[in-house]
Amino acid sequence: MAKTAISPTREEDYPEWYQQVIRAADLAEVSPVRGCMVIKPWGWSIWENVQKVLDGMFKATGHENAYFPLFIPMSFLEKEAEHVDGFAKECAVVTHHRLEPGKDGKLVPAGPLEEPLIVRPTSETIIGSMYAKWVQSYRDLPILINQWANVVRWELRTRLFLRTTEFLWQEGHTAHATEEEAREETSKMLEVYADFAENFMAMPVIKGEKTAGERFPGAVQTLSIEAMMQDRKALQAGTSHFLGQNFAKAQEIKFQDQHGKECFAWTTSWGVSTRLIGALIMTHSDDDGLIIPPKLAPKHIVLLPIYRNDEERTAVLAYVKSLKVELESQKYSGESIRVMIDDRDLRGGEKNWQHVKKGVPLRAEIGPKDIAKNGVFLARRDTGEKVGVGREDLVATIADRLDAIQKNLFDRALAYREEHTRNVDSLDDLIAWFTPKNTAEDKAEIHGGFAMCHLVDEPAVDELLKKHRLTVRCIPLAGAVDEGTCIVTGKPVTKRVVVAKSY
Amino acid sequence: MAKTAISPTREEDYPEWYQQVIRAADLAEVSPVRGCMVIKPWGWSIWENVQKVLDGMFKATGHENAYFPLFIPMSFLEKEAEHVDGFAKECAVVTHHRLEPGKDGKLVPAGPLEEPLIVRPTSETIIGSMYAKWVQSYRDLPILINQWANVVRWELRTRLFLRTTEFLWQEGHTAHATEEEAREETSKMLEVYADFAENFMAMPVIKGEKTAGERFPGAVQTLSIEAMMQDRKALQAGTSHFLGQNFAKAQEIKFQDQHGKECFAWTTSWGVSTRLIGALIMTHSDDDGLIIPPKLAPKHIVLLPIYRNDEERTAVLAYVKSLKVELESQKYSGESIRVMIDDRDLRGGEKNWQHVKKGVPLRAEIGPKDIAKNGVFLARRDTGEKVGVGREDLVATIADRLDAIQKNLFDRALAYREEHTRNVDSLDDLIAWFTPKNTAEDKAEIHGGFAMCHLVDEPAVDELLKKHRLTVRCIPLAGAVDEGTCIVTGKPVTKRVVVAKSY
Ligand SMILES: [Zn+2]
Ligand SMILES: [Zn+2]
Repeated sequence: MAKTAISPTREEDYPEWYQQVIRAADLAEVSPVRGCMVIKPWGWSIWENVQKVLDGMFKATGHENAYFPLFIPMSFLEKEAEHVDGFAKECAVVTHHRLEPGKDGKLVPAGPLEEPLIVRPTSETIIGSMYAKWVQSYRDLPILINQWANVVRWELRTRLFLRTTEFLWQEGHTAHATEEEAREETSKMLEVYADFAENFMAMPVIKGEKTAGERFPGAVQTLSIEAMMQDRKALQAGTSHFLGQNFAKAQEIKFQDQHGKECFAWTTSWGVSTRLIGALIMTHSDDDGLIIPPKLAPKHIVLLPIYRNDEERTAVLAYVKSLKVELESQKYSGESIRVMIDDRDLRGGEKNWQHVKKGVPLRAEIGPKDIAKNGVFLARRDTGEKVGVGREDLVATIADRLDAIQKNLFDRALAYREEHTRNVDSLDDLIAWFTPKNTAEDKAEIHGGFAMCHLVDEPAVDELLKKHRLTVRCIPLAGAVDEGTCIVTGKPVTKRVVVAKSY
Repeated sequence: MAKTAISPTREEDYPEWYQQVIRAADLAEVSPVRGCMVIKPWGWSIWENVQKVLDGMFKATGHENAYFPLFIPMSFLEKEAEHVDGFAKECAVVTHHRLEPGKDGKLVPAGPLEEPLIVRPTSETIIGSMYAKWVQSYRDLPILINQWANVVRWELRTRLFLRTTEFLWQEGHTAHATEEEAREETSKMLEVYADFAENFMAMPVIKGEKTAGERFPGAVQTLSIEAMMQDRKALQAGTSHFLGQNFAKAQEIKFQDQHGKECFAWTTSWGVSTRLIGALIMTHSDDDGLIIPPKLAPKHIVLLPIYRNDEERTAVLAYVKSLKVELESQKYSGESIRVMIDDRDLRGGEKNWQHVKKGVPLRAEIGPKDIAKNGVFLARRDTGEKVGVGREDLVATIADRLDAIQKNLFDRALAYREEHTRNVDSLDDLIAWFTPKNTAEDKAEIHGGFAMCHLVDEPAVDELLKKHRLTVRCIPLAGAVDEGTCIVTGKPVTKRVVVAKSY
């Protein structure tokens, strides 16, 4: 068996493989603060690229950015009953505004606040309170605002990127004069997320509606995009909520319509987070480490000069530097090619493996022999393919080569999902498919996938699925009517839903 | 007297003028959370431009971005004694991680934390704890990292942008093998800030060193840039700290040098914040509202179509839209010209004044008569100059016109500062210059300026100045030796320092 850069492999221990990929790529680390992570420069660069692309998409769909307070007064949370239930259990609560030396000289909290403040777990309530001030007339609508921010949800079990107490995200919050317009916004932003996931992350997603039990606390409708990871679990990669008038009523976002009648606004919210980095890792990476889709890669290509003495070094570095400039003059996906030269004093093999593990899409080794042929020795991260390429050829084809990688990553993820998606028409079959052979604690082999089932949207169904660690991931928006009977209740259903284990 | 868009004027009531400029430009608002502000889209766009330019400068000087936790364990603060003293009095303290319904059904904090967490007021301690893990050998140095983040310092008296409980900033944190290298970094980043202030914000600054009493808590040396606002007060616009080995010793950031000897690292930190927006407002704006230097303006030019009927509307809008495309093809300061069309259904005068108050550098009115002449009626925000300009001329000269505005703003701010800077050679003169004629509470006229004085760096001097609400803003880095005697103690001094009232 070939030795892999990451140990264990996906097959051997998927959760541990995930941690080791992050470590080997130097993406992030746990911090001394329980549940909070440190995002290191390579991981942060990917997030910067995610932000840049999404921000452009939000602006192209008419949204503006703004910034609202980190803190939410406790009383604001209380206004929307379901919202409180959803978030009260996992809030970081600020109760004091000073530290003072205590009896033993150690610091103790002092200056108690009259009303405790919550560190925002999401900002519907604080932003809504401002919208209530800003909206008087139908002329003040719509309000189409997005915020890039950190949020905090106290988590007991955390995992880097996937579930952390503090995470970074964007949250869109819009207010509209009509239900129709708000529903359109909800759908439009789901499309934006799906476009980003598929065309930038190279991650195929299913667009769908959440069942009642999985809705955002306080929402009338929650839409989501769901992706399959390489352990065949589903990951919810983005959500868009139609909030109806629930928050508008709780916060008095009211306006006078064209006829002078006072109406409540219709609101939406939608968000994606640093969780996307976790999704990216688990969709594409292999047993040699991270693979980054070129459109989001901090560097598209690394140039690795090879030489044995100072004389060779001078010639090789000159060649490499001028090649870098030439490559940077090319564009891929509207951006200049991002080139890195790695001339660190490290053994060539070790250096090469570092870039494999970091997921750089292309690596070019360049030594005296390559220069003699006026070319480079080029390796593709996704397929492992290695080939000699002439310099002019490389410059002329770099964008196409990156695009081929981008496309291959999407195709292979889609093939994986299709291979592990099937119609399941009885509860027994469903349970059987999601029962691993290896039942020892935490040792389950990769199993299951996306089961397409006829199920009604009722709490009893959710309860039963939950016993088997399953959930309805979504009711897909696409697809024709496919009538059948619920495999739990026997009631008639017109469409299959996606059932899976999930993150 | 001409009517002004902002009331009161700067002369009449400077602090209130400042609030009204922010309001009229729709930059920000106070929030329901004490001391926290809401940054509205127009204000946020300016901050986005600030971030973009500075981020490019940081990367060009070899820094990478990363992200560290929002929370700091209380025990971390205790490690550096001066640092605690500086921040313990103004910390937001998280003590619980849950809310539960209390006796009266209202929520109460629950789930007390074993160790309270501080919402970061600055991140030396949490970042240092990670550097201690990352640094083993001299080969791991330098570490050159920046973070864009929100921070919280509990403030009793707040003012939008200038002093808020939560604010946004960047904080650079670097670790080096030698003192010399760390000192170089400290100076280099001060130069970056001065470059940004002068060449992008069009705000002249004095680069200098802080006296002992004004240093960052825990720093060996604090450098700052100081600017004069239009009320002649100083505003500290950026700081760069040489931390010596203070934090490295407190947090055990140690490494083995080339000879195998264990050494403590030398660290620096440096930051600018949303306070810069306050500085920008107070440096350039006039009694008609905000003036934004073109390099940071969200929009460079607004096109204002004028028409009386549908037929005219069609022709004018077609003209305006094609002009927008042509203007956008031009570049200023490396960026495409940012053009906005305002075709809202508002009276022309009202619309025009909105853009004056928002500080858009150029406004072009375009009606049937202008189109007949194939031109626009162009107004400059900084000078108020209005002139007919041919279309081709406008497209060809837009970058030069913006640059003329950028330069004029800098020149006029520099002239203002020079006009209100003088050598002061006795304590009586100093006190007299900083004593307003109007002594009624909060009614002082604009007075004083930058006094260049001979003063020794001793606590007694700080104490005396403080009685008159004065501080030594900095010991300028530039300027020749100018020997004299301290106007307080009579001791010999080799250089004049800047004394002023300040924000
Ligand atoms: Zn089961
Ligand atoms: Zn006084």
